[in-house]
Amino acid sequence: MKNKTKMRETGCPVAYGLDTFGDRWSFLILRDMMIRDKKTYGELLEMEEEIATNVLADRLKQLEAADIISKVRDPENRRSYIYSMTAKGYDLAPILTEIMVWSGEYDQRPFALRNVPDLIKKDRKGFLAKISGG
Amino acid sequence: MKNKTKMRETGCPVAYGLDTFGDRWSFLILRDMMIRDKKTYGELLEMEEEIATNVLADRLKQLEAADIISKVRDPENRRSYIYSMTAKGYDLAPILTEIMVWSGEYDQRPFALRNVPDLIKKDRKGFLAKISGG
Repeated sequence: MKNKTKMRETGCPVAYGLDTFGDRWSFLILRDMMIRDKKTYGELLEMEEEIATNVLADRLKQLEAADIISKVRDPENRRSYIYSMTAKGYDLAPILTEIMVWSGEYDQRPFALRNVPDLIKKDRKGFLAKISGG
Repeated sequence: MKNKTKMRETGCPVAYGLDTFGDRWSFLILRDMMIRDKKTYGELLEMEEEIATNVLADRLKQLEAADIISKVRDPENRRSYIYSMTAKGYDLAPILTEIMVWSGEYDQRPFALRNVPDLIKKDRKGFLAKISGG
């Protein structure tokens, strides 16, 4: 395991969370799975933030090892996989939601997207239920 | 600015949040400021996760540039600074809280600390108020 992905062993829950999913790319993969319902490697690779294919492969492996996502063979294409969130993964929905609330409040750049933060403001419970696999 | 800290410009609130504070070290600095009330470079450097001095200096600069923390000269020692959270920084408290709730649920390692997650379970509102500078 590379040093940068090594888990810190202080027992702190913040460190555990950051070491498990708090990577600049991992959470964007989870965003695409939870909010955009992406399920395949090809779909995830089309991220507008332009994730590199080796980074995507690496982070999917890490997320699977952490039991945040799981994969099964695609019955329609045996060479590829269908990825889905586990219960442990769906339980990240409140964190994802709070990140969007905060950014909706503070991202003042003119191109900042406001639709999801606005949606959460109107109906946080409904939004949470929707992205939690409900 | 180094490539790894470059802000992604897709407008997505998740990307904005991760680019602003979602670094493996930044959030631990904020944890120590919000939960442990640390205020100086020396106090922050004593982090049990063993942050390197150049990483700490770099992340403090980034957090200050993002208006998440601010600093003033220490009146008792003009060569050093007192760091404090801004309102924008304190508004990260719900994210910090949700990370701890999730990790409290899923970190099964024997040395995982449970006191703060347990505290949040008992009184989430009180905990949030406390770490939000209340």
